[in-house]
Amino acid sequence: MITCDTIEHMEIFNQTRLRIYKILEPAEECDLLSRLFDFFIIGLILANIVALILESVPEHDVRWDYAFARFELVSVAIFTAEYILRVWSCVENPKFQHPIRGRIRFILTPYAIVDLLAIAPFYLPFFGWDLRFVRTFRVLRLARLAKLARYMSAVQRIQAVILDKRDELAASLSFMMILLIVSSCLLYFAEHEAQPEHFGSIPESMWWAIVTLTTVGYGDVYPITVAGKLLAAVIALLGIGMVALPTSILGSGFIDANKQNPVHNQRCPHCGEQLEA
Amino acid sequence: MITCDTIEHMEIFNQTRLRIYKILEPAEECDLLSRLFDFFIIGLILANIVALILESVPEHDVRWDYAFARFELVSVAIFTAEYILRVWSCVENPKFQHPIRGRIRFILTPYAIVDLLAIAPFYLPFFGWDLRFVRTFRVLRLARLAKLARYMSAVQRIQAVILDKRDELAASLSFMMILLIVSSCLLYFAEHEAQPEHFGSIPESMWWAIVTLTTVGYGDVYPITVAGKLLAAVIALLGIGMVALPTSILGSGFIDANKQNPVHNQRCPHCGEQLEA
Amino acid sequence: MITCDTIEHMEIFNQTRLRIYKILEPAEECDLLSRLFDFFIIGLILANIVALILESVPEHDVRWDYAFARFELVSVAIFTAEYILRVWSCVENPKFQHPIRGRIRFILTPYAIVDLLAIAPFYLPFFGWDLRFVRTFRVLRLARLAKLARYMSAVQRIQAVILDKRDELAASLSFMMILLIVSSCLLYFAEHEAQPEHFGSIPESMWWAIVTLTTVGYGDVYPITVAGKLLAAVIALLGIGMVALPTSILGSGFIDANKQNPVHNQRCPHCGEQLEA
Amino acid sequence: MITCDTIEHMEIFNQTRLRIYKILEPAEECDLLSRLFDFFIIGLILANIVALILESVPEHDVRWDYAFARFELVSVAIFTAEYILRVWSCVENPKFQHPIRGRIRFILTPYAIVDLLAIAPFYLPFFGWDLRFVRTFRVLRLARLAKLARYMSAVQRIQAVILDKRDELAASLSFMMILLIVSSCLLYFAEHEAQPEHFGSIPESMWWAIVTLTTVGYGDVYPITVAGKLLAAVIALLGIGMVALPTSILGSGFIDANKQNPVHNQRCPHCGEQLEA
Repeated sequence: MITCDTIEHMEIFNQTRLRIYKILEPAEECDLLSRLFDFFIIGLILANIVALILESVPEHDVRWDYAFARFELVSVAIFTAEYILRVWSCVENPKFQHPIRGRIRFILTPYAIVDLLAIAPFYLPFFGWDLRFVRTFRVLRLARLAKLARYMSAVQRIQAVILDKRDELAASLSFMMILLIVSSCLLYFAEHEAQPEHFGSIPESMWWAIVTLTTVGYGDVYPITVAGKLLAAVIALLGIGMVALPTSILGSGFIDANKQNPVHNQRCPHCGEQLEA
Repeated sequence: MITCDTIEHMEIFNQTRLRIYKILEPAEECDLLSRLFDFFIIGLILANIVALILESVPEHDVRWDYAFARFELVSVAIFTAEYILRVWSCVENPKFQHPIRGRIRFILTPYAIVDLLAIAPFYLPFFGWDLRFVRTFRVLRLARLAKLARYMSAVQRIQAVILDKRDELAASLSFMMILLIVSSCLLYFAEHEAQPEHFGSIPESMWWAIVTLTTVGYGDVYPITVAGKLLAAVIALLGIGMVALPTSILGSGFIDANKQNPVHNQRCPHCGEQLEA
Repeated sequence: MITCDTIEHMEIFNQTRLRIYKILEPAEECDLLSRLFDFFIIGLILANIVALILESVPEHDVRWDYAFARFELVSVAIFTAEYILRVWSCVENPKFQHPIRGRIRFILTPYAIVDLLAIAPFYLPFFGWDLRFVRTFRVLRLARLAKLARYMSAVQRIQAVILDKRDELAASLSFMMILLIVSSCLLYFAEHEAQPEHFGSIPESMWWAIVTLTTVGYGDVYPITVAGKLLAAVIALLGIGMVALPTSILGSGFIDANKQNPVHNQRCPHCGEQLEA
Repeated sequence: MITCDTIEHMEIFNQTRLRIYKILEPAEECDLLSRLFDFFIIGLILANIVALILESVPEHDVRWDYAFARFELVSVAIFTAEYILRVWSCVENPKFQHPIRGRIRFILTPYAIVDLLAIAPFYLPFFGWDLRFVRTFRVLRLARLAKLARYMSAVQRIQAVILDKRDELAASLSFMMILLIVSSCLLYFAEHEAQPEHFGSIPESMWWAIVTLTTVGYGDVYPITVAGKLLAAVIALLGIGMVALPTSILGSGFIDANKQNPVHNQRCPHCGEQLEA
């Protein structure tokens, strides 16, 4: 695919690609251009989210609509250029070294998929998709928010804890699901004669169950029979456990993470070796 | 009860029973047939729950009712066969070795009771029970969900923590009960003249207390007098403790569990022996 | 006060008092009579609470009222006898040895005050108090519930943790108070023109603040102006901290308590001495 | 600025300033005058907050208004004198030693800014500001509450934990913000046709999102379409994480803080030196 006349050209070409790769990646300490690019992209993402939010406000007049459309056009152009440059330069990363297979693997990484989803809604009409159908895909522009994850280092520590405890969190999620199904079945049997409009079927009474178990409690649906209230009281108490379980699982995860932290490592003063691995 | 002509027959019989016992139990790594059986039963349980949920939706027509009835018939047949085979083969387990006493003890284990409850609603009419009365027992089909517990290993770690802290959790539950009784009595005295329809008696004002202490707050009942609001403010603040206590008890349980985990074991570098038991 | 003819009489008298003291105190392992008395008092307390709750239900007829009155009479008689015996026999406890000063100090202990409060509402009319005024004191019968604390040992571990962390819990309570005052002032300034019926004064808007900060959210009062909603959004987010702070403080308290627990004590295998104090 | 005839005068002047500085600062154990001053200022602050709250109650008559105005005048006079004396005597603190630069740096400390804000609303009209505009600044009198922080030592431990975990808390806050934006966008797309009065724009549906994610759940806005309810169910479950994350982060912070506490320090019995730094 790449044709170069001389080795010199090749050299310059490779150096350019490496430079672009380094600029695109989150910046190292001293690389000013890469830093500026990072700030520019983060700013553009935030501006896009603000635009998405403001666009939904119905009061603004036609001139604003035009401005939003133009800003969208410019943003998609920049994000598309960024995406193409990322795919082109990704071979500089040892993990995606191979010109074809490496690039395909890069395209399938979560970050690259998010980058593609963030620009996809704009290009879908060109592939003959119905515009009204594409409209529902405009929500995908929210994917631009996920592009931020690349630049947030503090988020990674929380992700590590969640990942470390994924088995127990999944188990507590399955507890929730069982509690949800059991609650909505019980309340359906207790209330569907008294309130057929709210507890008309089990899927409908699931709305009540989720609102109660998460302790949100809008108050649009609540039991009115004595049996329903007794069951709801027990279910609401168990709902506390639904908050308590993930909280305590994550809590023990953060404490484990701190222990593995070198700051808290313990050394035996006798022999100078670490007491904790 | 069991009659066999020769020792050879006996041998084959015993080997069949052992094989069936192993298939019925949660599968070991390499036993493919047992694994397939596990997935089949889990799938059937999930399909039963989905059927139970969908059956309650009133919009579907008569053909669906027929399909649901047929699926129920097939499911009960399979669960009944599973139950009989489990009772028959349980003697392979050293804990239930005795042909009669062992089987009775097996029937009284929680798992076996759940298995029986899951099929009982179907057989009750045959014992002369009134059909309308049995209808309320159909909720027992939810017991099929509990059959899943046998196959979920991650749940067991959470169960172990809850079991380890059962004393403190019970104490925090008794705190809740005391708080619940005191709150509903106080609000009854403060509000029953202003709102006799909501705080007409202490059992009625308990509904308010549980909705407030669990921080659900539907908004169907709330104090309107100044004294009631003052008391409710203090009770709502104490309600935070009702979430905080079980969360922190479980949290310390998970941290203890991690400590007993061999991964975190500490070794003294001086003598090489473990510092934590 | 006490007059005895001979030393023998004195001996028998003292032995009786010691026996009664031992029976009244929570039972030791092998003392059957003391145990039976404990169960009787616990049962009577629970029956009193159930009676208090059922009495409030307006549907029962006159015969029930009579039964409740008689049960109240019997209960007060027993609790009064218990109180008098406790005051009489308390001198057996080395802490309250002195016949007069010791008894006065015993009467001022929290347990004895609770015992007195539990019977006081019955005796107040005899001291010339107006009956209608005394009616409001009937809520003091709830103090009988507090009499249970003497018999619940698991509650003491939780109390110890709460006591150990009382400084930090008080600090988080003062955070709450500051947040409560600031929230209700801000919302008063934002909403009192739009909703004078709900945010008519700062004390009134405190009801909104407490309902929001504890995440109860009845929905009887909520901001409707843009400024009010913006402030309420920030306050609701800070309200999460109001749940998080006491939870994490208690959590670290339970973990500290476990560490001091001998079960988790660490011994150095080198010299056999404890690593943790 | 300061003119003194002799060194003796200078000496007396400096000693007075040092004495005033010591009185103004939170008191040491044995300094009675400083202690009394602390209690007086704390009492005055609390009385000011009570006055601010009571002033908003509309029922009181004109004489009360006059009393509140006079109390405000006296309070501002005292707080102004306190502020001037603090600025004057701050040079006794080695950190603010320089008569001009030190004083400017002192004025810019958070405590001094709070002190200024607490009296500012009173003086603004004298600088030609419109009185109606200044009225909105009266909320700044709440800053007097922040003056209390100087005297609360238990709060400092909690502040230390929050400060120690500020990175992770900020990361969990950014999780919340992302969840908030994504939730309100999704619900806007799902509900704005069914409920244009509540989900008319994304900023409007943010009110729903914050009320749901914090589990307050007033019930003024809730989804009514099937798609909206499904999305809201998932969002409400994720809202539990919004409570769980800061709770567990703070929890691990309090446990770390306890470890650094000398009470829990571990000593190796072999060599007698501390095992934990």
